[in-house]
Amino acid sequence: MPEFKEEVKDWFIGLQNRISEGLSQADGKGKFVSENWNRPEGGGGKSNTLSQGNLIEKGGVNFSAVEGPLPGALEKSFGASGAHFFATGVSLVLHPANPWIPIIHMNVRYFEMDGGRKWFGGGIDLTPHYINPNDARFFHQSLKNTCDLFDNQYYPDFKKWADDYFYIPHRKETRGIGGIFFDRLEENQDKSLGDRFEFVKGVGDSFLPIYLHFLHLYRNTPFTQEERNWQFQRRGRYVEFNLVYDAGTKFGLETNGRIESILMSLPPLASWPVTIVPEAGSREEYTQKNLVKGLNWTD
Amino acid sequence: MPEFKEEVKDWFIGLQNRISEGLSQADGKGKFVSENWNRPEGGGGKSNTLSQGNLIEKGGVNFSAVEGPLPGALEKSFGASGAHFFATGVSLVLHPANPWIPIIHMNVRYFEMDGGRKWFGGGIDLTPHYINPNDARFFHQSLKNTCDLFDNQYYPDFKKWADDYFYIPHRKETRGIGGIFFDRLEENQDKSLGDRFEFVKGVGDSFLPIYLHFLHLYRNTPFTQEERNWQFQRRGRYVEFNLVYDAGTKFGLETNGRIESILMSLPPLASWPVTIVPEAGSREEYTQKNLVKGLNWTD
Repeated sequence: MPEFKEEVKDWFIGLQNRISEGLSQADGKGKFVSENWNRPEGGGGKSNTLSQGNLIEKGGVNFSAVEGPLPGALEKSFGASGAHFFATGVSLVLHPANPWIPIIHMNVRYFEMDGGRKWFGGGIDLTPHYINPNDARFFHQSLKNTCDLFDNQYYPDFKKWADDYFYIPHRKETRGIGGIFFDRLEENQDKSLGDRFEFVKGVGDSFLPIYLHFLHLYRNTPFTQEERNWQFQRRGRYVEFNLVYDAGTKFGLETNGRIESILMSLPPLASWPVTIVPEAGSREEYTQKNLVKGLNWTD
Repeated sequence: MPEFKEEVKDWFIGLQNRISEGLSQADGKGKFVSENWNRPEGGGGKSNTLSQGNLIEKGGVNFSAVEGPLPGALEKSFGASGAHFFATGVSLVLHPANPWIPIIHMNVRYFEMDGGRKWFGGGIDLTPHYINPNDARFFHQSLKNTCDLFDNQYYPDFKKWADDYFYIPHRKETRGIGGIFFDRLEENQDKSLGDRFEFVKGVGDSFLPIYLHFLHLYRNTPFTQEERNWQFQRRGRYVEFNLVYDAGTKFGLETNGRIESILMSLPPLASWPVTIVPEAGSREEYTQKNLVKGLNWTD
């Protein structure tokens, strides 16, 4: 029987493959290009990137499994020094070409330290260029359905966590409509580490049906150059969040991580125009007004 | 006779006007739109923005003069608490449409605290999308000529400061070809505050002839979509520097500054493509290789 961490790693490798194949098939044109890389201090990963597809303008689905002495930057935050660590995960961001299809991000990860703690983390969140309440309900209800299979407290707790995490203070707006976010899910009196793993599997497996729904729903919806410009501006906000606030990005940059993987989340084209002030009653204005914390999109 | 700080402020207002008019005239189409704003805690400013000109795709030439109790975020760094401060400056960034014309940034500023220190800061730096050694020599020689009128040590010291400041560690490349950067220029045994001001005037006045040279040199140079794409990628690096490392941007975001002014430096269109690997011997490769510290572009 393989070690638990090997079991997790193997499941993540399978998840990366299933997601990449499912997306490639739905796109119909774009193919993922795989690149294997090694980390000098131990471990490595495989990055799958796709560009200029029919539907996906740029996307990355990355797997990594790294290990070695705990980096100095992590010692303080983890309350450990001199420990050996192991971390594995799948991380993806997709930037669709059609502005009616939302940007999506998903991450599932597992971390352990020798003689120390073991935990899972992850999340899925959606960044529509145009917020549509039906889409928001579909997305959040799907996540809630998955969460509820494991613990009725997961969805409300992790939904709030996503609202708080995916927030751009200097714009006073959320990155998108949120989703779920969780970290340091350890074993406790109620749940074994295996239980946590089952939940993380549920989250990972929920991604493809959710995103294929949006790809199919909007794949033939026409759009104008103005709507594309709005998309570029919304992508600019995505860049602002990721470069200024995202903990994973900051950590990667500070610890000299693999730059192509850290910044794969950045969009193929983004803009900071002098001003786009949405017209009263427009879909742009509706979007702007709904980029706030605490909205309830589920039954 | 007006107070020294009023004299500085008035000179900066004049500089903003002269630069805005000079750029507008050279552009031939783009007009600056002025917006006056007030800071709740004291003072305010005027932001001049231009978009979709013939030559300037997006540009901002901002003036501000703010005062009040020293913000908490500055107290530690300035070794003062409870002080009243006054700060005034002109800051500009121009993103040209034609990739052969370089991006430019200039800033001149003056700061004082009641009963405390008084100093000037500023700089000019150039970010060509394509590095051309003749242009680099013209730019650096112009700055050196200005600096040498005041102190022979200014150019070498401030050129090194710019090399070190405008650097993107995670890309291991400079933001552009540097220029000059200086801060906390106080009076000392050799120089009065008035001497420092004369130097800062020299820097401010050097901007227009330098940039008009580039606007006229390349205004009719044709470019391809591939060269435009390279420009978008270089602009992406500019975004990375400004959002991740630039001290002024970080300070502005942390102290709840005027967001339109803080982020006016961000480009109208930028991209993070999956890969643009320059061909051997190409101008793109030459550019990439010359984004390093310590190059000597002057006689």
